[in-house]
Amino acid sequence: MENRIYNFSAGPAVLPEPSLKEAQENLMALPGVGMSVMEISHRSKTFDEIHATAKSNFRKLLGAGDDYEILFLQGGASLQFYMLPLNLMTPKKADYIVTGSWSKKAVKEAKRVGEVNVAATTEEGVFNRVPKQDELTLDPEAAFVHFTSNNTIYGTQFTAEPETGDVPLLCDASSDIFHKPIDVNKYGAIYAGAQKNIGPSGVCAVVVRKDLLERVPENLPSMLDLKLMAEKDSLYNTPNVWGIYIISLTTKWLLENGGLSEMEKRNNEKAGILYDAIDGSGGYYKGHAEKESRSVMNVTWNLANADLEKKFVAEAAESGFSGLKGHRSVGGVRASVYNAFPKKGVEELASFMKEFQRKNG
Amino acid sequence: MENRIYNFSAGPAVLPEPSLKEAQENLMALPGVGMSVMEISHRSKTFDEIHATAKSNFRKLLGAGDDYEILFLQGGASLQFYMLPLNLMTPKKADYIVTGSWSKKAVKEAKRVGEVNVAATTEEGVFNRVPKQDELTLDPEAAFVHFTSNNTIYGTQFTAEPETGDVPLLCDASSDIFHKPIDVNKYGAIYAGAQKNIGPSGVCAVVVRKDLLERVPENLPSMLDLKLMAEKDSLYNTPNVWGIYIISLTTKWLLENGGLSEMEKRNNEKAGILYDAIDGSGGYYKGHAEKESRSVMNVTWNLANADLEKKFVAEAAESGFSGLKGHRSVGGVRASVYNAFPKKGVEELASFMKEFQRKNG
Repeated sequence: MENRIYNFSAGPAVLPEPSLKEAQENLMALPGVGMSVMEISHRSKTFDEIHATAKSNFRKLLGAGDDYEILFLQGGASLQFYMLPLNLMTPKKADYIVTGSWSKKAVKEAKRVGEVNVAATTEEGVFNRVPKQDELTLDPEAAFVHFTSNNTIYGTQFTAEPETGDVPLLCDASSDIFHKPIDVNKYGAIYAGAQKNIGPSGVCAVVVRKDLLERVPENLPSMLDLKLMAEKDSLYNTPNVWGIYIISLTTKWLLENGGLSEMEKRNNEKAGILYDAIDGSGGYYKGHAEKESRSVMNVTWNLANADLEKKFVAEAAESGFSGLKGHRSVGGVRASVYNAFPKKGVEELASFMKEFQRKNG
Repeated sequence: MENRIYNFSAGPAVLPEPSLKEAQENLMALPGVGMSVMEISHRSKTFDEIHATAKSNFRKLLGAGDDYEILFLQGGASLQFYMLPLNLMTPKKADYIVTGSWSKKAVKEAKRVGEVNVAATTEEGVFNRVPKQDELTLDPEAAFVHFTSNNTIYGTQFTAEPETGDVPLLCDASSDIFHKPIDVNKYGAIYAGAQKNIGPSGVCAVVVRKDLLERVPENLPSMLDLKLMAEKDSLYNTPNVWGIYIISLTTKWLLENGGLSEMEKRNNEKAGILYDAIDGSGGYYKGHAEKESRSVMNVTWNLANADLEKKFVAEAAESGFSGLKGHRSVGGVRASVYNAFPKKGVEELASFMKEFQRKNG
């Protein structure tokens, strides 16, 4: 195996080694095809099979029936911030739960389409938690309720979906899709940029309940028309063929490794090791997120001051732990430990944390 | 070398083997980095270098100075059909030269933004040629003139740019970018989906003269705002990191193999071999395009009837020539021979054509 380091990047992020290995082996020529996946037509039988596998794996992992479309689009979650309201905000008002920078960006784009009601925001505490159900001011006439299930920058996560009654729930799950089993039927739409938990950047999965597509206005620009994308099965134009191929491999890896129940167990273990290291440090490491809102995908903490944090990140990098610098908006340290991140790397980081405290305590 | 076949696909299409080989070797871990390119942060020094290389290679190949932005966006040329008029159609009228299905799609999206004047169309002859300069009805007050430099489906190509005086020229060069040296200063913008001549699908190069960005209206949706994309150097959100990496490799290959003058020579040779085979067949093979408009990227021809064409394509596939079926709108045969397509494959196809005619003449 090549010399790989521990990659704690927030995204693009670590991918399963067996998936990368398979992609590498077949890069020059898919067996029986004689071309690289990067060279095959998106209208070919070969790509049909890859695409069908990726969609079918998605359905299995989410438990999604035929009442949901599985789309793989370009432009990332950032394009969906605009595209989903453009297509689904009927009537032209929606509730947004604001739990971080990405929620705020979603609000900004939604406001171009219609009225946005901020159903709750936790900005006051530098987004160190997600709101409780009884804090939400929901409008029963809203077109939908939007939330960000995991907040990469702040290290917070919803442990359960907001309850929205009959109002469809839209979820940006870019940074925690497939981290545990969910009841997909609670959702009107789930979307996720692939580059954190399911694949390379450049492809965004959009899972949408088919009946919601009846809301799509006529005559939208073709590439922004969700109904057209669904009618053409993500093939209105050339999709990100390579990205969808990698997603077919990472979702296969998920299914072959115990599925989402096993991921939930592993993720709780991995994040638990780091939170224990924080909580057991006697205040040397201070977690950013409130305990009830802690993310199992992104673990964030601070040290006594910025200089010490800088030293921690630098020495960690020298020891083979990459990507630990916190986002500029909160500083400190952030360890992103997505599905594909190995437990061993987390254990070694916890040891490093103890050793660093001993030397610099 | 793995068992690779001759890939005549129109796109996604054949890529240079040395580029694929390098991507394969480094797929698990970039040397000195310890992560796959698919796993590196788009804000990392490693990606900065890849991105800078791709941009710098683009500048060298096009001879583009600092007065041009080099952007790598998502959504393909299809999104640019809408996005470019949305950003640059000031005043709200533009001239479009219609030479095929892709031009027509560009017109359709542009009409959502403003008034479209069809400066010329060759649809009457099933797009078997591109118009001459004196056929163009150009409006000196138009915001821009748009043309499609190569028409993948019909196998036609402009041998010189339309002359538009002071009106900026916008070009969809998806299927022939880098096929020969051009004078970039004739263009206001050149855009190209990567999947035909420069890389995998999922990334679109947009080269735009900086002064045109002054036209960009305020408050466009962020992901559709070309000025914002330029200000953020294609990194407003996570770009297609892998796609840009492959472009950095294919453009390196171009520069190391004699650049665009050498490509022009090779492309003329390769296409020439096929056109000679057509012209020397005594009418057995009938070229679709008029001679003056023949494309060196996509060579299209018909046989006496659809059954014979089907037989030709099927037997060619059995002999290792893949992707020769013509587009459904013109039928027949299409051989796409982009920069990376080897001359040997063209010679072998020409031999196959002679042999097929002998057996079925």
